[in-house]
Amino acid sequence: TTEFNENPHRRFNILTGEWILVSPHRTKRPWQGKTEKQSLETKPKYDPNCYLCPTNGRMGGAVNPDYKKPFSFVNDFSALLKDVKEEKYENGLLYAESESGICKVVCFSPDHSLTLPLMSREEITDVISLWQQEYKELGAMDGINHVQIFENKGDIMGCSNPHPHGQIWAQRSIPQEVQKKSDRLLDYWNKHQKSILEDYIAQELKLDERIILQNEHFVSLIPYWAVWPYETMIVPKRKIGHIGELSDEEKKAFAEILRKTTIRLDNIFETSFPYSAGIHQAPTDGKEHPEWHFHMSFYPPLLRSATVKKFMVGYEMFANPQRDITAEQAANTIKELSDVHYSKQ
Amino acid sequence: TTEFNENPHRRFNILTGEWILVSPHRTKRPWQGKTEKQSLETKPKYDPNCYLCPTNGRMGGAVNPDYKKPFSFVNDFSALLKDVKEEKYENGLLYAESESGICKVVCFSPDHSLTLPLMSREEITDVISLWQQEYKELGAMDGINHVQIFENKGDIMGCSNPHPHGQIWAQRSIPQEVQKKSDRLLDYWNKHQKSILEDYIAQELKLDERIILQNEHFVSLIPYWAVWPYETMIVPKRKIGHIGELSDEEKKAFAEILRKTTIRLDNIFETSFPYSAGIHQAPTDGKEHPEWHFHMSFYPPLLRSATVKKFMVGYEMFANPQRDITAEQAANTIKELSDVHYSKQ
Ligand SMILES: O=P(O)(O)O[C@H]1O[C@H](CO)[C@@H](O)[C@H](O)[C@H]1O
Ligand SMILES: O=P(O)(O)O[C@H]1O[C@H](CO)[C@@H](O)[C@H](O)[C@H]1O
Repeated sequence: TTEFNENPHRRFNILTGEWILVSPHRTKRPWQGKTEKQSLETKPKYDPNCYLCPTNGRMGGAVNPDYKKPFSFVNDFSALLKDVKEEKYENGLLYAESESGICKVVCFSPDHSLTLPLMSREEITDVISLWQQEYKELGAMDGINHVQIFENKGDIMGCSNPHPHGQIWAQRSIPQEVQKKSDRLLDYWNKHQKSILEDYIAQELKLDERIILQNEHFVSLIPYWAVWPYETMIVPKRKIGHIGELSDEEKKAFAEILRKTTIRLDNIFETSFPYSAGIHQAPTDGKEHPEWHFHMSFYPPLLRSATVKKFMVGYEMFANPQRDITAEQAANTIKELSDVHYSKQ
Repeated sequence: TTEFNENPHRRFNILTGEWILVSPHRTKRPWQGKTEKQSLETKPKYDPNCYLCPTNGRMGGAVNPDYKKPFSFVNDFSALLKDVKEEKYENGLLYAESESGICKVVCFSPDHSLTLPLMSREEITDVISLWQQEYKELGAMDGINHVQIFENKGDIMGCSNPHPHGQIWAQRSIPQEVQKKSDRLLDYWNKHQKSILEDYIAQELKLDERIILQNEHFVSLIPYWAVWPYETMIVPKRKIGHIGELSDEEKKAFAEILRKTTIRLDNIFETSFPYSAGIHQAPTDGKEHPEWHFHMSFYPPLLRSATVKKFMVGYEMFANPQRDITAEQAANTIKELSDVHYSKQ
């Protein structure tokens, strides 16, 4: 496959049914465009102007408790609202329906200066515990059929506050990206009575071309169909439908691989690596979902340095996602990096 | 529908079959994140360091002619290559296929300082003529089944050179976004023997809630299902499958509405409005495409000012595209703007 991999080709994403264009020969283009200014400032442990730091006031008027562990609250500027009447609108070729839900903010740590890769395994385990609690509580609510846990990290990823935090948007309808995966996972399950991700991970472990890291319970890899330059996926080896099903030991293993994966991402360009991360898992619609196999993905935009990113623009928006370096090249780069954060080496 | 429009809801895109989450109540969020620096420099008419200016040398070694009209050439760093052997790769759960094609660059003007909204109707007509020629010539080539014409404008849209230019990527396979639309257009055609866009435009003209501009042959509007804050679509009133079918009069009308639409976009925040624009039209696979109705779309990222953009990140990547201002609000803003560029007022 080596020669094949050096020429333009399209790869198929078995989880979404979509294709991605790969142009491996194209990494030497000139660059006269935007370079992002790298923020090198060190952050204080407490910032009196941060609305996520303990004891500070928020925009909505609330005051944060003096929290010591991960802390969550309802977003003061939620994109979804709880009590929206269920309605459909149909007028000729215009279709819409009302949507309801809840948006929450999850502070990962009281310490304003941290990010996941700078936190200990124990501290990350506490974050996962809070995610589990939210997934269960929100998912159990009437009219909440899906719980999306995600993090936007870095201002180039639209993160409006540098305090370490993620978000949860829980809602009535199953979001589109999740539905795509649900359909394909179910298809495979119906045909094989197995998780497609379980089979995929087994194949990847055998090939060992895109694996970054593994421990007893989890694998971290660049998926064959990765879109973003250093797109990374963390997958449990056994089929676990949602994070609520993790045993204590598995939870620790998840925290450990999450820590090491984000450390390695930071080590690529010795910068606090921006990304959007998200957990895809079983809907909370009350149905059995034997097909689901949860996984966490990282979509980081940086391509060539701490300041040059990959833009998903014209061709990508109108035609097809496209990448230059191959998944194998990205995996090779990350594989060789240290598990110790560059700031601590 | 007014009350409905003030609460969170999902709208259906009849062209792609996808949904978009709208959160109209959410435009007052605080912002502690990234603000883009606005580039206020005026550009020279000729830049000796620009590889797109007439008579200058390019990276690949070629020298540009002293062109006076729109000028195109094969991209020196093409993502697609012409002579890639047709091959499929299948290995367990890994699927890929080779891809071949041609990437071209289209300089809109020899004048480095211009952008489409600063060009005359006649100059824009010349750009359209070159697009027509490229669509026909590339589309007639063996193994080219689709021709994607697009423009990335502004460095925040990954445009690596400020010289006014767009690109064309022509290739063997039908890209994903185009296939989605092809399927839905065909569906409607088979059911009604009519173009869904013709019916849609007729309905929009009657409702007059999202129309920005029109002339005898074209309409410019914010589609009901717009994703980007000021996403705009230019559609011919009669069903025209591809730009090759435009009459001379229609071509002038297209140039005119393209000029006025881009002027109004610049006038929103009195800035050179960044966007990715693209033309979706009939594939060049040699088949009849009675279902196709070409249109040009603009996806501009700016939301609240010349420096604050909408980020399509975490939730949008993992769950569902989301917008804050409604299509109607965006249309109302643009409707009231002048057809004279702010720099000339
Ligand atoms: O071809 P350019 O201008 O160097 O590159 C730009 O447009 C391409 C096509 O949309 C994208 O793949 C690149 O990410 C973007 O930076
Ligand atoms: O909620 P925040 O952090 O203000 O906003 C950020 O994340 C949201 C969810 O992905 C996006 O809709 C916004 O565009 C982005 O800036």
